[in-house]
Amino acid sequence: MNLGAFLPAPGHHVAAWRHPNARPDGGLDFAYYRSLVRTAERGKFDMVFLSDGAGVRTHYKDADELSRQGRMVHFEPLTLLSALAVHTTHIGLTATASTTYNEPFNVARKFSSLDHLSAGRAGWNVVTSVTDAEAQNFNLDRQPAHAARYHRAREFMEVVTGLWDSWEDDAFLYDKESGRYFDPAKLHVLGHKGEHFQVRGPLNLARSPQGRPVIVQAGSSGDGMDFAARWAEVVFTAQQTLGQAQVFYKDVKDRVAGHGRNPDDVKVLPGVFVVAGRTQAEAEDKYAVLQDLVDPVVGLGLLTGLLGDVDISHLPLDGPLPELPATEGSTSRQQLVYEQARSQGLTIRELFLSVAGGRGHRFLLGTPQTIADELESWFTEGGADGFNVMPGYLPDGLDDIVDLVVPELQRRGLFRTEYEGTTLRDHLGLQRPDFAPTGSGS
Amino acid sequence: MNLGAFLPAPGHHVAAWRHPNARPDGGLDFAYYRSLVRTAERGKFDMVFLSDGAGVRTHYKDADELSRQGRMVHFEPLTLLSALAVHTTHIGLTATASTTYNEPFNVARKFSSLDHLSAGRAGWNVVTSVTDAEAQNFNLDRQPAHAARYHRAREFMEVVTGLWDSWEDDAFLYDKESGRYFDPAKLHVLGHKGEHFQVRGPLNLARSPQGRPVIVQAGSSGDGMDFAARWAEVVFTAQQTLGQAQVFYKDVKDRVAGHGRNPDDVKVLPGVFVVAGRTQAEAEDKYAVLQDLVDPVVGLGLLTGLLGDVDISHLPLDGPLPELPATEGSTSRQQLVYEQARSQGLTIRELFLSVAGGRGHRFLLGTPQTIADELESWFTEGGADGFNVMPGYLPDGLDDIVDLVVPELQRRGLFRTEYEGTTLRDHLGLQRPDFAPTGSGS
Repeated sequence: MNLGAFLPAPGHHVAAWRHPNARPDGGLDFAYYRSLVRTAERGKFDMVFLSDGAGVRTHYKDADELSRQGRMVHFEPLTLLSALAVHTTHIGLTATASTTYNEPFNVARKFSSLDHLSAGRAGWNVVTSVTDAEAQNFNLDRQPAHAARYHRAREFMEVVTGLWDSWEDDAFLYDKESGRYFDPAKLHVLGHKGEHFQVRGPLNLARSPQGRPVIVQAGSSGDGMDFAARWAEVVFTAQQTLGQAQVFYKDVKDRVAGHGRNPDDVKVLPGVFVVAGRTQAEAEDKYAVLQDLVDPVVGLGLLTGLLGDVDISHLPLDGPLPELPATEGSTSRQQLVYEQARSQGLTIRELFLSVAGGRGHRFLLGTPQTIADELESWFTEGGADGFNVMPGYLPDGLDDIVDLVVPELQRRGLFRTEYEGTTLRDHLGLQRPDFAPTGSGS
Repeated sequence: MNLGAFLPAPGHHVAAWRHPNARPDGGLDFAYYRSLVRTAERGKFDMVFLSDGAGVRTHYKDADELSRQGRMVHFEPLTLLSALAVHTTHIGLTATASTTYNEPFNVARKFSSLDHLSAGRAGWNVVTSVTDAEAQNFNLDRQPAHAARYHRAREFMEVVTGLWDSWEDDAFLYDKESGRYFDPAKLHVLGHKGEHFQVRGPLNLARSPQGRPVIVQAGSSGDGMDFAARWAEVVFTAQQTLGQAQVFYKDVKDRVAGHGRNPDDVKVLPGVFVVAGRTQAEAEDKYAVLQDLVDPVVGLGLLTGLLGDVDISHLPLDGPLPELPATEGSTSRQQLVYEQARSQGLTIRELFLSVAGGRGHRFLLGTPQTIADELESWFTEGGADGFNVMPGYLPDGLDDIVDLVVPELQRRGLFRTEYEGTTLRDHLGLQRPDFAPTGSGS
């Protein structure tokens, strides 16, 4: 079983920052993050996973409403992971970066640099970004259409992966005597000319320890799944029931095979929001503390975001959620939220409370045994290769998972007790890719 | 006196990598860099300075010629400085980033993140980039014209500095009781709409420890000096004689005053390539080792780059350098090289050998005493506020400067014996800027 630790400071629950033990300013505190990631490393997690958006969410009607939201300012993820890389030894380091608001040469450089710095522990969570707030920081009024974002993303991947194979693994000779720094036959210039990009290369970095940083992707729309089938090595997804998870899992693996890839080379990791206690009652109490801290303004803002920034502020909180127009945001997340509201007959208030912790991801509350039972059944019954685990607030929620849930998984033989390798690929059981230049030669 | 350590691995001399004691693969070795920067910190340097280009220089006729050049692959500088930030305590950390091949929101985020991570030690060396090789990695055939690059750079700075002042210093309340994360009156949304950029903001980072990371700039053309006068806090420059340095120094300070700024708020640091020995003969021997390792192909390539990538491969090496057409590269560097050739009557071969170490920067070879004499006279006679010091090869060249030259400067009372503050601004004697939002309010 593969486990990622999803660690947005101060936690995944929308009210996390208000918890008495939470560090509301943790997003800009390196010592805090170092301690968290060392805890995850003590728990033998495959990787820490940092989500990201290039902007402050603005689906609040004014600064007063915005000021009640708790996750606003934090390190740029590659800055943070670069610093964490040199204070950890084994855990994988996965950061989110957008194909819509970056240039491929810059992204290729940064993740290759992190892979070199961490001796092979870098992962890139590829996103196309889903908010107008980000678009408005990059010369646009609204975000590009869903299809257009994926169109650019596909070419972006060709460029980035091509740049990563600029130099063969043994290209650099460093031969002081002859004055030959590299073997010219082992340089491959990309020379990409496409619809969105024209990038000559080569990258000014040697091929990195993992050959390529691990590609993570979370798109669950049709476009997203096709993209994942072609490029992803880890698929991060939101699934609520085992039945849905099994359908998704099989769909991804079939599509992967359809691209001529081995289905085992892609790991499917549903997100799971976990609240663990020594007893069921203790877990319920922990959850209640967080739920009681949900400000309705913030809950409604979260729901608005999950619905793709569609305005629901005029609707009565204690009435049902009507059918709303689709937006250019995350289509899979919108469907998931609608389904949850309909299937359980929730009012808007009940709905935002029900997503306050998981934000659309599955919610597991209980003892180490009941939580492990659920994770085990999904893992053994074709619903998941592992999980991206989301503590409600930090650091306690992560401590509970590492100290209570992980040992139970280890007892069952489901999870490693020691790291067996040193790279993120080693942990995930992924091959180091062969050198495969796509360029026209030097 | 302020001192920067200019540390491109494996050193500033074009043949550095071939030196028996040099580490030719140091550009991708964190432990190597950590050791170098700790040496500079032991020497109480104001900052380490990392130059950068987003590409491999391609002013070589083929891969065979390119393969003889020794500075090809290295960490992306912000990745490296983020890692160094958490292994050092005092030294400033300045990285180069281009306004031509980045978006301002991304640059504002990264340097603010580094400033938070390092507790106030970040500096940004602003460049507009000067090679077609970089342009060809960013959707262009050739680099934009010099004037166009500066036009974009000026607006870029307005956006970046505006984003850095998105939140007042005390904007974040973290008030768990009331549920108020920040004071809405202290959020300032930029709302920039200009010719090149439309950026709404706010930045998703609190105002950073230094208020703003320190702005460094190296433009020495008219456009470059005007830009520096408006924005720079440190001006990095190449000057060959005290007379020239004095003219430049006064020109910069006058232009700064012309922008309504205090001339003391801008520090002028000429680059200086230093080879130090316990005796004059020892220094000469050290230099000869490096000069003997210069491959003519590499020397000619370096010269080509300094001349703005103009093709000189057809000219006889032992003849003079004729007047050549201006390019869109660094105009100030081109003039400097021509002047050097003319004033000393050098052949092309003599010229590339004479710039092999300094690459257009001043060259000081000698004992700690004679080198300190030169630095002192420029410092006391209005030629410089300090220097960006360039060791020929690493680590020995830096050790020599820290162990031989710095103590001599300290004995003369010209340089600190202990850090007196903790931020890069403290070291440089620069004020923390007042909060000055340029936006339209929240």
